[in-house]
Amino acid sequence: MCRVPDLCVLGLGLIGGSVLRAATAAGWTAWGATTSAADAEAAGADGFDVAADPDEALRRAVAADALVVLAVPLPAVDEVLRRVAALAPTARLTDVVSVKEPVADAVRGLVPGARYVGGHPMAGTSASGWAAGSASLFEGAAWVVAAEDGSDPAVLREVVALALATGAHVVPTSAAEHDSAVGRISHLPHILAAVLAAVGADGGPLALALAAGSFTDGTRVAGTRPELVRAMCEGNRTALLDAVDDALGRLGAARGSLASTGGLAKTIDAGHRARTALDAQRVAERTDVTIDLGSAGVAEALRALGARGGRIVSLEGATARARTS
Amino acid sequence: MCRVPDLCVLGLGLIGGSVLRAATAAGWTAWGATTSAADAEAAGADGFDVAADPDEALRRAVAADALVVLAVPLPAVDEVLRRVAALAPTARLTDVVSVKEPVADAVRGLVPGARYVGGHPMAGTSASGWAAGSASLFEGAAWVVAAEDGSDPAVLREVVALALATGAHVVPTSAAEHDSAVGRISHLPHILAAVLAAVGADGGPLALALAAGSFTDGTRVAGTRPELVRAMCEGNRTALLDAVDDALGRLGAARGSLASTGGLAKTIDAGHRARTALDAQRVAERTDVTIDLGSAGVAEALRALGARGGRIVSLEGATARARTS
Repeated sequence: MCRVPDLCVLGLGLIGGSVLRAATAAGWTAWGATTSAADAEAAGADGFDVAADPDEALRRAVAADALVVLAVPLPAVDEVLRRVAALAPTARLTDVVSVKEPVADAVRGLVPGARYVGGHPMAGTSASGWAAGSASLFEGAAWVVAAEDGSDPAVLREVVALALATGAHVVPTSAAEHDSAVGRISHLPHILAAVLAAVGADGGPLALALAAGSFTDGTRVAGTRPELVRAMCEGNRTALLDAVDDALGRLGAARGSLASTGGLAKTIDAGHRARTALDAQRVAERTDVTIDLGSAGVAEALRALGARGGRIVSLEGATARARTS
Repeated sequence: MCRVPDLCVLGLGLIGGSVLRAATAAGWTAWGATTSAADAEAAGADGFDVAADPDEALRRAVAADALVVLAVPLPAVDEVLRRVAALAPTARLTDVVSVKEPVADAVRGLVPGARYVGGHPMAGTSASGWAAGSASLFEGAAWVVAAEDGSDPAVLREVVALALATGAHVVPTSAAEHDSAVGRISHLPHILAAVLAAVGADGGPLALALAAGSFTDGTRVAGTRPELVRAMCEGNRTALLDAVDDALGRLGAARGSLASTGGLAKTIDAGHRARTALDAQRVAERTDVTIDLGSAGVAEALRALGARGGRIVSLEGATARARTS
């Protein structure tokens, strides 16, 4: 049998607060802590188990061998990891930060004895703080779990169980592949939307008066609060640079072809094929597969599942049921 | 008093067929012609006045001093203009082609005596042919009218009257400003959507499995039929190159800033300001103004109206009522 661990959530903002609510609702023994007096008070008033401070929460985690969830913004990660190193240096540890390699690097540097498996629930709103969270925030969302060759199999299984308990499905991959993928499909869209909006506005009120659906859709996310977009994109600097370089190369090729031959076939046809692939993947028939999370080489099998566009949808003991197209 | 002219529509595809329907419905005396036997037969079967061929339609236009509407795709424009030059060399002439400078150049070269005022109704669907058209296609749409210093004031007024009769509002500008604006807000969005879709697909099924709203919105128009997108973008080559260069410059600057300082403030903030400007312009209070289309310097006044994001919404005699933000 596989145990359901106790859960210690460090950080009670939108994501951490929603993790605490969702895990509690799923019957897990879970407590949290935050350095924000307002969030701590609000969570306590809502009836949740809130420790006096992160140190106390960590001491309880050590006593219960709980799974510790790092749920603070990227700039605050190092400071929290130093408390983990001081109080719970071999903790079972995961996180819900939106980039994975920078967090994995910080864990390796600051808490080398931690049994760490990274995660990223791909859900959120533009609001923040405990009050913005909910127990249902992750229902139907993808929760990326970083399955590395050195990952502790027990912690890997616990992180999968946590994600599924919140209503999410699990997309397994490596930290590097995660950061590359979200650079392409989550961060680059914000950069291109900003560029398109600015080029349109350069055309003045006339251009904006003539703007229709293609411009409105293409610039929608440029309306997101700039500080949120900057934090998200700048935190994934290395992988985002690759995506931007790919885009620059493709846009430059379109420019060259338009200037020399006047043709755009290669650009437009490639875009159409890609968009068609997205639509096809979304409606594809799914095939059920099972993966034994206790087996040797499970991390490699999980990464292969994610690379095929697959996802874990349920867990029974150590047997994960997954769907792939 | 200002007369309503008779109308001769050359080309009975989606746009030309809709112009013939809408003008007839508005009470104008209108006939059409097309070299497509299928479209001619369908239009005749629907009860519209269809000449035996474009030459006959043009002879009737000369007899009635009708306004001739050039409603064929850009590649067919020269051939039709040669028939206009042969049969109606001083015709009152407008067009509904999606670029304006290439058509104006062709008219200057092939029918220098024509009294030409270019137009572009910004409506359409992905379908084509007579059967796809409707009398209501232009309701609520922007119909760009090119007001140049040498424009014949009577023809200018007639083209405005035609656009308003179909239910559109008129955005006046020059051919050059039109092509520049649509390059920025209509053609560049298709290029960037194609680039984003391809960069996302480069990330494989994993990236597409993690794609959410920002990617879906940013790539939506990449699903448009490639031959339509190519014809539209390639036809506006010169102006689109400027827009692509503007985008390349801004994307390159973002790349440089991300690589050197790690910051994206300039890019993200400029995009947010631009998108905010679009939203603000759409909800702005409108101020009614009137413009006498018979006055000297009217073309300059009209272009200034369009440059402020203004539009003509009605016409009484030669007095146009316009709204501006």
